Amino acid sequence: MPPNRKLGIATVCLSGTLEDKLDAAAAAGFDGVEIFEPDLVASALAPEEIRTRCADLGLNIDLYQPFRDFEAVPPDLLAANLRRAEKKFDLMERLGASMALVCSTVSPESVNDDDLAAEHLHLLATRAAERGVRIAYEALAWGRHVSTFDHSWRIVRRADHPDLGLCLDSFHILSRGSDPAPIRVIPAEKLFFLQLADAPHLDMDVLQWSRHHRLFPGQGAFDLPRFLDLVLRSGYEGPLSLEVFNDVFRQSDPRVAAVDALRSLLSLRESVEPRSVEGGLPAPPELQGFAFVEIAAGGGAAPEVTGALDALGFTRTGRHRSKPVALWEQGSARVLVNTDVDAGDATAVAAIAVESPDPAASARRAERLLAPVLSREHRADEADLAAIAAPDGTSVFFCRTDVEESWLADFEAVGGSAPSVLSAVDHVALTQQTDDFDGAALFYRTVFGLHPEVPAEVAAPFGLVRSLSMTDAAQWVRIALSVAAVRRGEWAPGVPHPQHVAFATDDIAGAAARLRDRGLLLAIPDNYYDDLDARIAPERLDLLREHSLLYDRDEQGEFLHCYTPVLGTRIFFEVVQRISGYRGYGALNAPVRMAAHRRVRLQGLASVVRGVA
Amino acid sequence: MPPNRKLGIATVCLSGTLEDKLDAAAAAGFDGVEIFEPDLVASALAPEEIRTRCADLGLNIDLYQPFRDFEAVPPDLLAANLRRAEKKFDLMERLGASMALVCSTVSPESVNDDDLAAEHLHLLATRAAERGVRIAYEALAWGRHVSTFDHSWRIVRRADHPDLGLCLDSFHILSRGSDPAPIRVIPAEKLFFLQLADAPHLDMDVLQWSRHHRLFPGQGAFDLPRFLDLVLRSGYEGPLSLEVFNDVFRQSDPRVAAVDALRSLLSLRESVEPRSVEGGLPAPPELQGFAFVEIAAGGGAAPEVTGALDALGFTRTGRHRSKPVALWEQGSARVLVNTDVDAGDATAVAAIAVESPDPAASARRAERLLAPVLSREHRADEADLAAIAAPDGTSVFFCRTDVEESWLADFEAVGGSAPSVLSAVDHVALTQQTDDFDGAALFYRTVFGLHPEVPAEVAAPFGLVRSLSMTDAAQWVRIALSVAAVRRGEWAPGVPHPQHVAFATDDIAGAAARLRDRGLLLAIPDNYYDDLDARIAPERLDLLREHSLLYDRDEQGEFLHCYTPVLGTRIFFEVVQRISGYRGYGALNAPVRMAAHRRVRLQGLASVVRGVA
Repeated sequence: MPPNRKLGIATVCLSGTLEDKLDAAAAAGFDGVEIFEPDLVASALAPEEIRTRCADLGLNIDLYQPFRDFEAVPPDLLAANLRRAEKKFDLMERLGASMALVCSTVSPESVNDDDLAAEHLHLLATRAAERGVRIAYEALAWGRHVSTFDHSWRIVRRADHPDLGLCLDSFHILSRGSDPAPIRVIPAEKLFFLQLADAPHLDMDVLQWSRHHRLFPGQGAFDLPRFLDLVLRSGYEGPLSLEVFNDVFRQSDPRVAAVDALRSLLSLRESVEPRSVEGGLPAPPELQGFAFVEIAAGGGAAPEVTGALDALGFTRTGRHRSKPVALWEQGSARVLVNTDVDAGDATAVAAIAVESPDPAASARRAERLLAPVLSREHRADEADLAAIAAPDGTSVFFCRTDVEESWLADFEAVGGSAPSVLSAVDHVALTQQTDDFDGAALFYRTVFGLHPEVPAEVAAPFGLVRSLSMTDAAQWVRIALSVAAVRRGEWAPGVPHPQHVAFATDDIAGAAARLRDRGLLLAIPDNYYDDLDARIAPERLDLLREHSLLYDRDEQGEFLHCYTPVLGTRIFFEVVQRISGYRGYGALNAPVRMAAHRRVRLQGLASVVRGVA
Repeated sequence: MPPNRKLGIATVCLSGTLEDKLDAAAAAGFDGVEIFEPDLVASALAPEEIRTRCADLGLNIDLYQPFRDFEAVPPDLLAANLRRAEKKFDLMERLGASMALVCSTVSPESVNDDDLAAEHLHLLATRAAERGVRIAYEALAWGRHVSTFDHSWRIVRRADHPDLGLCLDSFHILSRGSDPAPIRVIPAEKLFFLQLADAPHLDMDVLQWSRHHRLFPGQGAFDLPRFLDLVLRSGYEGPLSLEVFNDVFRQSDPRVAAVDALRSLLSLRESVEPRSVEGGLPAPPELQGFAFVEIAAGGGAAPEVTGALDALGFTRTGRHRSKPVALWEQGSARVLVNTDVDAGDATAVAAIAVESPDPAASARRAERLLAPVLSREHRADEADLAAIAAPDGTSVFFCRTDVEESWLADFEAVGGSAPSVLSAVDHVALTQQTDDFDGAALFYRTVFGLHPEVPAEVAAPFGLVRSLSMTDAAQWVRIALSVAAVRRGEWAPGVPHPQHVAFATDDIAGAAARLRDRGLLLAIPDNYYDDLDARIAPERLDLLREHSLLYDRDEQGEFLHCYTPVLGTRIFFEVVQRISGYRGYGALNAPVRMAAHRRVRLQGLASVVRGVA
């Protein structure tokens, strides 16, 4: 596919007034827009003004949409529909739009008659052509008589008018489970328009699914690369245009959503684009693990965080040469504790750094995928780490630690090393705001090249939590995203939605014992073990109970994990032991952990930890 | 039904830890609870402690649930399941619970064999009986082999064990569209337990529907009064127990949700209870319109609000004898403007007052339905209005204005009356927080006796909005509730989700002209009228366009309406003309109105109105 392929977006994808939407689409870098009629109807800009505004913003008006319930109706209704169409052609003339979308009818007054539908569409195309407008006919998945792309194609072929062609919409085709392979029988000159949308697998009414739950490509479950490849191999030459109805995007900042939208299209284009094309994306990095995780510990939280790291067996090995940042190490796990934070700020994961064989190329890829590049202050003799911002504000670094003069050289050594209990960072769990969740998943999938695993849903004590974990093929880097489905219960005292960092070990009992000795092992209630005994009766139940270890298993193996209390406002640590290739995250146990965290909060942690650190 | 019928709630209905849930259920006034196993598993209280806690709170443990995937399995699995059951009987013994819920299996390892299922359940009941436990078997709507109540009854009858009976759950029965009438063939002694839940009509996977979208009785679309009547006529004597899985309730303040829950049950009980029963509810009031609407206008907003009332043709007719509250009147429409408000507070609907023939009985009904009674300061010579608080914090008064010494006597007359353009309050539109929406609908339905109309959904510029209007049979009182489905886009400047009061008129052009003369008519863009012309081509299009009138129609008649800008932080007025019995609210036009409100906000209203008032 040529890299100059135009990329577009329907205004319905974005929140706000038409003016907000156009501004956001242009700022992100789209080439064109579909004007969604209700956006125009509510706008105070005259069509001529919209035309000028789009031109000023560098946006082509690719499509005006939708025109509904036109074809296969009785004569009086046909006359009314033609009058309606002429009015819309008037508008399109003023707007400077030359293609109208006509959706297959859902009218109860229409008849199931392909000949009549073709005849009416021929008539419409004739009238349209007189006004310089072309008609793209689309089969809605819930169309009354025409609901599949091949049916819409039969009608268009029968109508046989040069100004009548097809609009293909990936949602309408893939949601019905239709095989898109036969798209290739449609001649290129009849493929007038292509709308792209992804969606999660949902077993629900297809109209409701379409109107509320579409996603940008790569955020859902559809095989859009294959779909797009088929359409392009048919010779389609028009823009790739997103049409996504989504309740969250509908109220999200349109400037952010437009960036996510374009990122999704760039990534989709990459999937069908030969790697050699000029202007293409650098390949995703072959990640080799976490270089470090940086924790911002404001106010009085630093002793809690460092006390916990100490209890976990970390040693403070370095002090940053110019910033109040300490390096803690153990095995290949490295944690930076940054105390250059306002006391009022939350204790949080400030940054994650991943090992890339070519950090510069990784950063270039991120930048091409519209990730904001962070300008960082650093002294001339300090490492210039390539840093970008994830949608939730977490800083992301690409590093190579195994070279001379790596970022480690910015730290002055201060201590020795202790015997290692933990070996590495297993995963980082980042809680997201509702608006950021799908965007964050897209970010890590496209920028890091991670693969999403199966989404999970947890009925947690303070509200339903959805999560999505992602990892690379070799499972070097695991990121777990979660979001409160409605929101986290605000009534519950002292429970912001916390983040955590999980460390891998081969001796979880040892790690738990260390934590317990320091008063930092999250106590798990007996009821949990009684239930575990009834359900699974795992070996070593007494060991689990003794060390407050949680347990899970999958087809591969077993999983033992334990936690610290929440430290500061919103961070805690987990220790995990994966046995025989267990791949999950023990999501089933999350409600037990959350209730335990609440208990510690109510009892008050600070006194315990301050005594230790 | 005897008024001493016990009322219960499953802990899964409420947010929080088990301790939070028990406290909330007891505080609301429930008699018993179903302990949902995951709540117990996550609790640090030993079963004996839970038992004591429930006893101290006056809560009976009606049921322990759920026990899954027991019956019709191969021998080795049966042995494991029996071991699991024995462990749970141990627990129930410690808990002091004497009934366990067993759900029809969803296990892929089970077989479709009623005889085997009956045999296994007989065995389970025998074991249970030895431990003083009875088994209530429930057909899950998505059960693998048993998914209907009549099928579960055939198996229980075949099993023929005195300690095995049925649990009926209204959701599992009504969600499948099953006719509940045959329930009456089940003998009373086999009806062990009754779980009640409502739900909206949703065309989706029944398990997802059940797990996320159940509602308390009266909040959804099921005919629960008929269902309950059938079960009671069968002779069921156990508690009425709520089992509602809902994503919003799951994170709402459990103390509030528990009150809603009990209110819904009390109202459901009323529907099957002879009116004469002692301790029953006073009948719903026969409302006769709005007595007044009170607007809190803090800070600089008072001139905006009174300027708009003046422009609408209202006259300031009274001044409260002891409070900074002014009475504005026109026709039978009365608005109180209360300036005893902190400057920082939002301009909002502070109170609504409805005309009741017997205000004291209406207030008593509200109180019996757990509405908080507001204690109000008033002088000895002032009216003692019966006031309660709605879930969103709006004060609600019941009044009789047509008597001597009515609340009007608290106002000192200050002016004459002007010719009336508006005749009455048509409706009050109250925007709700996510957590309050379903509770508010329940409140107005039960306390006022209003009937919900068809729910609407509007793709508004700043996020999807759901609304539900409710009215009495004579349409004297209309309340329109709305809620931002995800939330109102926070990125958009100056757009809190506003409330409004709508006034009825027979001369909307006259009302609009008055507003326009004062610079207070919300301008509707030409694009709207061009689209209206294309779609409907209504008569008098020029008149509509000239006066910025919005238009709708239904099977009955037509609807013309216009608006003021948003006044202060979050209130505006609407004028409506209903022609030939139109029943709606012009919801279709809401996005156009919202975009127009945003434009005024960006341009700045205050200067315009301050010049007038």
